[in-house]
Amino acid sequence: MAGDRIFNFSAGPCTLPLEVLEEAQREFVEYHDAGMSLIEMSHRSPEYEAVHSEAMALAKEVAGAPEGFEVLFVQGGATLQFAMVPLNLLAEGDHGAYVDTGVWAGRAIEDAVHHGSTYTAWSGADDGYRRAPDASEIELRPRTRYLHITANETIGGVRYADWPDVDVPLVGDVSSEYMSRPLPWDRFDVVYGGVQKNLAPAGMAVVFVRRSAMEHTNRDLASYLRYDVHGASESMFNTPPVFAIWIMGKVLRWIESRGGLGAVEAASVAKAAVVYTAIDESDGFYRCPVDRASRSLMNIVFRLPTEELEAAFLDEVDKAGMSGLKGHRSVGGLRASVYTAMPMEGVERLAELMHAFAAAHA
Amino acid sequence: MAGDRIFNFSAGPCTLPLEVLEEAQREFVEYHDAGMSLIEMSHRSPEYEAVHSEAMALAKEVAGAPEGFEVLFVQGGATLQFAMVPLNLLAEGDHGAYVDTGVWAGRAIEDAVHHGSTYTAWSGADDGYRRAPDASEIELRPRTRYLHITANETIGGVRYADWPDVDVPLVGDVSSEYMSRPLPWDRFDVVYGGVQKNLAPAGMAVVFVRRSAMEHTNRDLASYLRYDVHGASESMFNTPPVFAIWIMGKVLRWIESRGGLGAVEAASVAKAAVVYTAIDESDGFYRCPVDRASRSLMNIVFRLPTEELEAAFLDEVDKAGMSGLKGHRSVGGLRASVYTAMPMEGVERLAELMHAFAAAHA
Repeated sequence: MAGDRIFNFSAGPCTLPLEVLEEAQREFVEYHDAGMSLIEMSHRSPEYEAVHSEAMALAKEVAGAPEGFEVLFVQGGATLQFAMVPLNLLAEGDHGAYVDTGVWAGRAIEDAVHHGSTYTAWSGADDGYRRAPDASEIELRPRTRYLHITANETIGGVRYADWPDVDVPLVGDVSSEYMSRPLPWDRFDVVYGGVQKNLAPAGMAVVFVRRSAMEHTNRDLASYLRYDVHGASESMFNTPPVFAIWIMGKVLRWIESRGGLGAVEAASVAKAAVVYTAIDESDGFYRCPVDRASRSLMNIVFRLPTEELEAAFLDEVDKAGMSGLKGHRSVGGLRASVYTAMPMEGVERLAELMHAFAAAHA
Repeated sequence: MAGDRIFNFSAGPCTLPLEVLEEAQREFVEYHDAGMSLIEMSHRSPEYEAVHSEAMALAKEVAGAPEGFEVLFVQGGATLQFAMVPLNLLAEGDHGAYVDTGVWAGRAIEDAVHHGSTYTAWSGADDGYRRAPDASEIELRPRTRYLHITANETIGGVRYADWPDVDVPLVGDVSSEYMSRPLPWDRFDVVYGGVQKNLAPAGMAVVFVRRSAMEHTNRDLASYLRYDVHGASESMFNTPPVFAIWIMGKVLRWIESRGGLGAVEAASVAKAAVVYTAIDESDGFYRCPVDRASRSLMNIVFRLPTEELEAAFLDEVDKAGMSGLKGHRSVGGLRASVYTAMPMEGVERLAELMHAFAAAHA
């Protein structure tokens, strides 16, 4: 398929809008007649400062974050946030509650344990991680500072259809559905995620922190680990990851030009429906292990009757100009990641193949 | 100067080889007939894994790191390392010693204090930070685990002409002179630095850690903060900063093609000499505040007789197709950062301007 653009269903890093890539390519060696590339410029140059502050403004605007939130660009992805959340939010005597919905919630839990008093307030482990909980199932203890949720399990394909309405502030790892649906901001103290799925190339997390929550920090911490340090310097405390921020600004502008979050959400619902319909109408040839109400719009996991058929299916995918559909190595099966930049044409081609393959092998 | 490439003397981010930028531009939208950009690919794809492991191999090769060292790609720049060094190296009862040679040593000291028992073993503060110390001046206490040095002060323009030979392992922040000179590896346990000067666009640190030093870690830490976790996963524990690693690989190949570290060092000595000669032959019109033996080859700081002349000089610099020569906002004056990708032609043009300007205004 050399020369043709492949429909890339990878779970992340993943497909970006072609227009964004082409624009960045044109500007890559010499940025706006500046005599150099943007990635060569001082981060204190007027050109880069404009890119930086536009990206910050767009991030708040597209996400719909209200006034009380600060947006931070922090390197280290969601993984470093697994440490920074308890380090910044838990004072002596506070507890952090965690919902365990699968692999990524588990990673957040394992890391948080080292930096504060934490506990699991609900776990889907006994149930095979097939769903997100209702608020009524979540058991919170006294002096719980926050409830940590993983908005979308990238590997398990589980999401919250409804955000839990509990008595403590939420902290949400929204990595794999970042800026793909509106959030009830009043319930959150922190919203964070790696950018390498819906927003930008890999290399940072975008962290929204309620300003009042930053002021509570009283921990003995080096500067890079402090939300307030990043906040006070507008994420310029040290050299920011210029390239990721530059491209994210372009993606956010592209999202705005398509109608913003409402349009992205509607498109996500429609794209996911195409694939889930192909699963549901296959008379059991394709099976999705996730409870219907918790099905992810971003990462659609499914199995075929046998592993041999799964391998044969992946061969067909490849020949049809698609890629990235192999399930995570820890669980096997298939996974179609349908992020914001995936066009409807991509999921239609996938559904077409699914129908044809089922017809041929059922 | 639209359309012409400017000689960029910025302290970082800073000039990269034009050949590298042009090659990346060609490959940017579609990488090697893969039907997508490298920055869109899964970090587990064969294409990216090849880029990643080549960059790791080249980093060790170009730096000349011996077998006992692991190379890690860690986001957060040198700044996050200010925390990770004590977190990973200091056990209960150990002390970390620090040499204070200026702003960046100071930052390392301020951050380390939060994560272990540390002390300042030599300080240039009383002396106006004009030099690096001799080993004989450094006062080490019992149970000192390491001596932390800042190989080159980017703001102060001070470097170690000779590496201190002391009785404890060195930990070196080599950010602004990374891979520009050979290192006595046997004296180091950790060598780290942000890549955004000599090696790549901003977005990560390269950290060389002696394998035996990683094994000593016994701290209660989240995964991203642990050297051993990054080491065991070959810096693929979480999604790596793909773009920075890709470009760094190209820069390292470019360095190899020019003859490697020996050639880079010789070129650096020659380039710096051109500027220092212009300073020294100006009959005091230009003044460098750094002791001759400690003069940086990377960041050449100098003053003119008055601030008005400095402003006028910067205007001339701009007209002559150069930029980035304004000193750091905290100290004023001028600073020429002459990193690996700066061609000899750049420093020659600068020296020419310095001679002409001095002749006109002395």
